[in-house]
Amino acid sequence: MPPATRAPRLPDRDAPARGADVTRDKLLQATHELLFEHTGSEPSVSEICTRAGVNVAMVSYCFGGKDRLLVALVERTTASVIAELQRLAALDLSPEDKLRRHIAGIVRNYVRYPYVNQLGERLQRRQDAAAAALTERFALPTLGFYRDLVAEGDRQGAFRATDPTLLFFSVIGMCEFVFTARSWLEGAFSQPVDDAFIERFVAHTADVVLHGIAA
Amino acid sequence: MPPATRAPRLPDRDAPARGADVTRDKLLQATHELLFEHTGSEPSVSEICTRAGVNVAMVSYCFGGKDRLLVALVERTTASVIAELQRLAALDLSPEDKLRRHIAGIVRNYVRYPYVNQLGERLQRRQDAAAAALTERFALPTLGFYRDLVAEGDRQGAFRATDPTLLFFSVIGMCEFVFTARSWLEGAFSQPVDDAFIERFVAHTADVVLHGIAA
Repeated sequence: MPPATRAPRLPDRDAPARGADVTRDKLLQATHELLFEHTGSEPSVSEICTRAGVNVAMVSYCFGGKDRLLVALVERTTASVIAELQRLAALDLSPEDKLRRHIAGIVRNYVRYPYVNQLGERLQRRQDAAAAALTERFALPTLGFYRDLVAEGDRQGAFRATDPTLLFFSVIGMCEFVFTARSWLEGAFSQPVDDAFIERFVAHTADVVLHGIAA
Repeated sequence: MPPATRAPRLPDRDAPARGADVTRDKLLQATHELLFEHTGSEPSVSEICTRAGVNVAMVSYCFGGKDRLLVALVERTTASVIAELQRLAALDLSPEDKLRRHIAGIVRNYVRYPYVNQLGERLQRRQDAAAAALTERFALPTLGFYRDLVAEGDRQGAFRATDPTLLFFSVIGMCEFVFTARSWLEGAFSQPVDDAFIERFVAHTADVVLHGIAA
């Protein structure tokens, strides 16, 4: 399945690049591009280094191995998603508007990083402690966002009683599936996943969720 | 992540077993158990044959290779899911009741075959024509079920205008995510995926969807 567009740039690092950081960033961007282009299939160390234009020893030198590089990639993308969520939480908006914007944001992030959740899951199954810590670093603040949202919607009489964990899973599941089962859409249903489709998908998902939990 | 329960038996073949069918069934059941126990990681040919108690040449003899064996496994599980869907479609029930039962059925099938969608996707990415045909054999009748359901709900004034393809993706996505992100639930959220949780999850999902598309 060819990608709809080229892989976007990764978010920038938080601090200015120093020493080996430039090579690290090249390796992260190369891995991101290969995962994006090959819908999640993990590239080899040699493919990553060829794409990055660096010596094949650099993955080991900069990260201590491919799994550590993959964890660093999940970390980079996750940090930007959490920062976005925190900015949204701080806005003075109704719970409905926050949820609608949140859904659009999740879908936008799956367009950018369609491989990231499943990569995190695979790393965790390899018993990687850093990956497990990362899951917590993503999952716990996101669950906190849902808890606050449901509590506020309940206080305002806008939402019916809803379990925030289950709502979290419903929303992420709906948003993720359009990317995990993209070959169903593009193959069996002849539905290209283009900008117009993404817009329609976001509106549909927000409508189902907001009607689904309205008081 | 240890499985909550042992892998269930695969559905029986449609026709009586003949010749090499007994060995084929042993290999399919062994592969199903290993995929179930290792949350989707693909077992090697030698692991499969050891579990099945057959000679290692049998995968090639019975199926013509591991990918063909995996396709046959997806085929076996998919056929039983489609048969279940067709029985449900034929029942004299309201669209709401059909959708509620359908959601419970999907979740039940993910409990039985948590690996099957992602396995089908991977096989298709390997450019496997048989896997692509299989996706169509699953996706098209399921989409037909959603089209009929939405049309009937619309005729009865029960549902608001809803795109059946998007509704299909919403429902399957919600149901699947609880299994693809099971380590989030069991790890970060300390929520065991047991029978009580599954029951609560089915009720929540059906409520969100039915309120979500109600007229």
